[in-house]
Amino acid sequence: MHEDDSMTDGISIIFQPEGKRAKMRKGQTILDAAKLAGADLVSTCGGKGNCGKCRVLIKAEPKLLTSMTRLEKQLLSGEERRKGYRLACRTSVKGHLIVEVPEESRTGRQRLQVEGIKTHARLDPLIRKYCVELENPSLADNRSDAERFLDLLKREHNLNNLRLDFAAIKQLPVMFRKGDGQATAVVWNEVVVSVESGNTAKRIFGYAVDIGTTKLAGYLLDLTTGEVVAVGSALNPQIPYGEDVIARIAYAIKDQDAQEQLQELVVTGLNQILKDLLEKSDVSSDEVYETTIVGNTAMHHLFLDICPKGLASSPYAPAIRNGFNVDPETVGLKISRQGKIYVLPVVAGFVGADAVAVALATEVYKKTALNLVLDIGTNTEILLGNKDQLMACSCASGPAFEGARIKHGMRAASGAIEKVRIDPVTFDVQYQTIDKVKPCGICGSGMVDLTAELLKAGIINVMGAFNSNINSSRLRFKDELQFIVAYSKETSTGQDITITQKDIREIQSAKAAIHTGALTLMRHQNVAEKDIDTVLIAGAFGSYIDPTNARVIGMYPEIELKKVKVVGNAAGTGARMALISKKIRNQAEAVSRSIKYVELATESSFQADFCNSLCLPYADLSEYPDTSSMLKKLGKYPKRPPPMITPSKK
Amino acid sequence: MHEDDSMTDGISIIFQPEGKRAKMRKGQTILDAAKLAGADLVSTCGGKGNCGKCRVLIKAEPKLLTSMTRLEKQLLSGEERRKGYRLACRTSVKGHLIVEVPEESRTGRQRLQVEGIKTHARLDPLIRKYCVELENPSLADNRSDAERFLDLLKREHNLNNLRLDFAAIKQLPVMFRKGDGQATAVVWNEVVVSVESGNTAKRIFGYAVDIGTTKLAGYLLDLTTGEVVAVGSALNPQIPYGEDVIARIAYAIKDQDAQEQLQELVVTGLNQILKDLLEKSDVSSDEVYETTIVGNTAMHHLFLDICPKGLASSPYAPAIRNGFNVDPETVGLKISRQGKIYVLPVVAGFVGADAVAVALATEVYKKTALNLVLDIGTNTEILLGNKDQLMACSCASGPAFEGARIKHGMRAASGAIEKVRIDPVTFDVQYQTIDKVKPCGICGSGMVDLTAELLKAGIINVMGAFNSNINSSRLRFKDELQFIVAYSKETSTGQDITITQKDIREIQSAKAAIHTGALTLMRHQNVAEKDIDTVLIAGAFGSYIDPTNARVIGMYPEIELKKVKVVGNAAGTGARMALISKKIRNQAEAVSRSIKYVELATESSFQADFCNSLCLPYADLSEYPDTSSMLKKLGKYPKRPPPMITPSKK
Repeated sequence: MHEDDSMTDGISIIFQPEGKRAKMRKGQTILDAAKLAGADLVSTCGGKGNCGKCRVLIKAEPKLLTSMTRLEKQLLSGEERRKGYRLACRTSVKGHLIVEVPEESRTGRQRLQVEGIKTHARLDPLIRKYCVELENPSLADNRSDAERFLDLLKREHNLNNLRLDFAAIKQLPVMFRKGDGQATAVVWNEVVVSVESGNTAKRIFGYAVDIGTTKLAGYLLDLTTGEVVAVGSALNPQIPYGEDVIARIAYAIKDQDAQEQLQELVVTGLNQILKDLLEKSDVSSDEVYETTIVGNTAMHHLFLDICPKGLASSPYAPAIRNGFNVDPETVGLKISRQGKIYVLPVVAGFVGADAVAVALATEVYKKTALNLVLDIGTNTEILLGNKDQLMACSCASGPAFEGARIKHGMRAASGAIEKVRIDPVTFDVQYQTIDKVKPCGICGSGMVDLTAELLKAGIINVMGAFNSNINSSRLRFKDELQFIVAYSKETSTGQDITITQKDIREIQSAKAAIHTGALTLMRHQNVAEKDIDTVLIAGAFGSYIDPTNARVIGMYPEIELKKVKVVGNAAGTGARMALISKKIRNQAEAVSRSIKYVELATESSFQADFCNSLCLPYADLSEYPDTSSMLKKLGKYPKRPPPMITPSKK
Repeated sequence: MHEDDSMTDGISIIFQPEGKRAKMRKGQTILDAAKLAGADLVSTCGGKGNCGKCRVLIKAEPKLLTSMTRLEKQLLSGEERRKGYRLACRTSVKGHLIVEVPEESRTGRQRLQVEGIKTHARLDPLIRKYCVELENPSLADNRSDAERFLDLLKREHNLNNLRLDFAAIKQLPVMFRKGDGQATAVVWNEVVVSVESGNTAKRIFGYAVDIGTTKLAGYLLDLTTGEVVAVGSALNPQIPYGEDVIARIAYAIKDQDAQEQLQELVVTGLNQILKDLLEKSDVSSDEVYETTIVGNTAMHHLFLDICPKGLASSPYAPAIRNGFNVDPETVGLKISRQGKIYVLPVVAGFVGADAVAVALATEVYKKTALNLVLDIGTNTEILLGNKDQLMACSCASGPAFEGARIKHGMRAASGAIEKVRIDPVTFDVQYQTIDKVKPCGICGSGMVDLTAELLKAGIINVMGAFNSNINSSRLRFKDELQFIVAYSKETSTGQDITITQKDIREIQSAKAAIHTGALTLMRHQNVAEKDIDTVLIAGAFGSYIDPTNARVIGMYPEIELKKVKVVGNAAGTGARMALISKKIRNQAEAVSRSIKYVELATESSFQADFCNSLCLPYADLSEYPDTSSMLKKLGKYPKRPPPMITPSKK
């Protein structure tokens, strides 16, 4: 064997504990190999080298690896480096070896919220089936098959003005001459798109889809009843190419191949969910005749293989706003070839079809009461208004709630700390993990709880800074100030799980983005907290957070808690409503046009609002009387209130 | 080498003079091998064994061939059999050998009429290009690319109510961010189907197509002027699978593969013609945005891969009558992917889009004068009427005029006898061949001339029977009575070229079919010969026949010769008109609905009419006063007129 054998044949890499294998070429990183192998390895920043999440453990002679980069020295502790940790995105290897993916670098089995509010929509699908009794042509009636067939639909079902799709035309000569006696027309929007042998009128299904930046949710519906038959979800397979929409867009606009790759990935994910749903429900893909799609504008463009260049820079113009239909073959979705896909309209570059769907599900556009809707995710969309006026904005809340950019952050998977209580006297920590197993990290809802509890315990102040005067061994300085949430002996990783000063800054920044959005919309409509009748918290992440603690840290303005409702995946609900109702689709188009989009970046008050919103809960504590009085009771009310920044005059 | 090597590796066959090669498997016939090799070998009946046209010369030991079938003994003369002639469709071989395809079994270079009458249609194409000056999105106008683009088209070109095709939507984000300044919208029927970079408004072309059973004709048009840029034609590559529509339908309905095979063949032929036209004209296929298709109903169905089962048996219902649009990709036509194909409407199972196109080209549907239009081909369509009433029927004239079922018949290729004069005294024959080379057979126009000349010379009588009493060495009995048109020493095949009693029966049958159709329509409209203002003879074959001699043999009723006009490929003209004019397409739809189809087979008078029409020119000679007086002058008027058959009462 020659020394450079590994160069010509490729270097074998095995990823443990999954045991997945890949062959690497010279110059490829371990992260590339993990993607190739399909190994579960977190890469929040998509390989840019700024998240430090893709740490892997390599037990091999150093000469088999490229040397440690400055970035790695910065992002990995001395101890980690000694143990053999490397960043997969910054390391290439020179010979065959085994890479261990530590638990904290794995996604794990994800808890994905798919259930949402149930909102009634009258069953009136765009696609329907009609069975007719076939009559053979005769000398007395030798009109074309098409004419005779349309005539039967008219006589038996009172359907006028139908057209035949070419695929249906092709089916007719065979259908009429089979002697089956019956045939079933599949009619979509006055077009006969397919003809099936026999009476299959009772078998017609639809697939409603919500494409999230992080999560895909799919719903199989029986279109004869409008009922959900099965639900499923999966992580968006695009995640390795960027955790947030900005990273994903940046990857897509590199070149046409990258854009197509992301398109194929998301469709593969949707096809996999559908396959599972069909198997569960004993339905064939040929019986699924329509799909509705919602998602933010970037997901919308990437699903459709539309270049998202317009979304990459101001003024963030989308390619198209209107809803429209595409053929399943065009995008590769494996429903009936004769089926249709309806993509709901978007509002703007960063307020997408998901926001329209949330509006449909929450019916804010027809209420008299004033509603504030927060659809919290990697991107958070906020709606404020009622039947008279509806505004929306988009907040780059970022992936912190998904665990990214947080030292021990992780997604809401098994072992994630999801609930936290801190004793204000002893500073002892009680926590609960998903699946009640040993903790391996902290998920978004845990971070919200932790931040609120740290504030209430006085461990951090309203500025989010650690109080280094408190007397607890949990608060330590190690590179930076950090608070130990779980000691190494309690955790499944054998490491302390901590929250650092930087982590708290990330959470402050994320919640400030949302708070700023809400404030801005309120100012645009000249309304105060008391004027808001209902706060609806939507989104997968939103379903798990504690609305009380979210309010304590000032994720949203201080509105009476009894007015706050968690509505789950409302975007999915909207997609389902559009699937079963023509009227809802018309409403979607009208809503997308009526929503007034507010671009936060161009607001003169944006900078000041954002800075004030970084405070916990807010720089002007008088806006949070309940929280203020609680902090006073706990003796944690600041002696010197934080400074309020006022916007500079234009 | 093992003895059975040829069995396992395939048997090598070389077709001379073309030198084409094929490997045969056990059980395959030489005809199969010829198809495989793409060798030029006539097969009028598609391998059914009833045309006797696929004779090939094999110089090999008899043990290499399967034994002579009864059919071959019947269709080949003793002399031919001794020379080594076999029927390719009935012979399999057991070892490698060379097959010689004699000249008379080859198609040769075909003379294909593509020019037709020129009828004015105002330039008003469905597809057009519009150039706009692009404006980048701004904070002041951050609407979607789609909205801004449609707005530009509205402002700059006054185009309202346009929609964007998905392909166009996908092009917009790229187009807007290229910085080219200009873009050109391709608009089809209020839909923007494509967007091109820069100003390409002057480059837009269309492809008009006439799919004949035997011949394909294609016309490349500049859609900014409506002018023809180039014309081309080719034999229909489906011919080896059946020479007439009935044989072609029978082949197609064998199974789905056969149907698809015929679809691919015809599209391959159309793509080849287009490629030649584009090369000649320096046009790119991406600049060809629309195609119009005409053809008889069987060709229409086979082009579209629609099962032609309905056309195979009474009541011959087509799949669809209306015209409609299909995407180029659906059928595989290589024009712009974003282009469209418009298939003109048909009238009935055997009166197709070609008849509609002939009506458009001749404008019979808007004339006050009464027109009789004969579109002569393997299938002959007849139109009779004017603006008040238009009727059509279809006559199975068969492929005799294409040389099929005629002993020395051939297509209108080089060496075909196309014009004949016979001296009524000496019976000497003068003939003219295509390309003025030595004759190798007789084409359709030659057969019409020959029949008329034989009648005028008294060599055959009005019943079509040879007069065995005439004194000429040209009339001989060899298996049957036959007349030598060209002696072996004059021909390129080295064989006598003859016309046999059976050949005359075939011609009588073909012309009787046409004559019966004309008579039937005249009876339906209660008009006599004198009432008809114009006779228009259309079709490729029709362009070459001598209208006088055609009238002498009674191919059409005896109408004054000055009223008879030859209009060439009028179907192609109609296809071109529909390509450049929206109005003409609407007229096509109206015409297809207004034409009253008369089904000859169900006419009670059909049998009697057909029998009477078999006579030359017709059983009732009083209906042909001019011809009668000519025969009287020549002394050939029958002493005993032929019997007139009257239809039996129902």
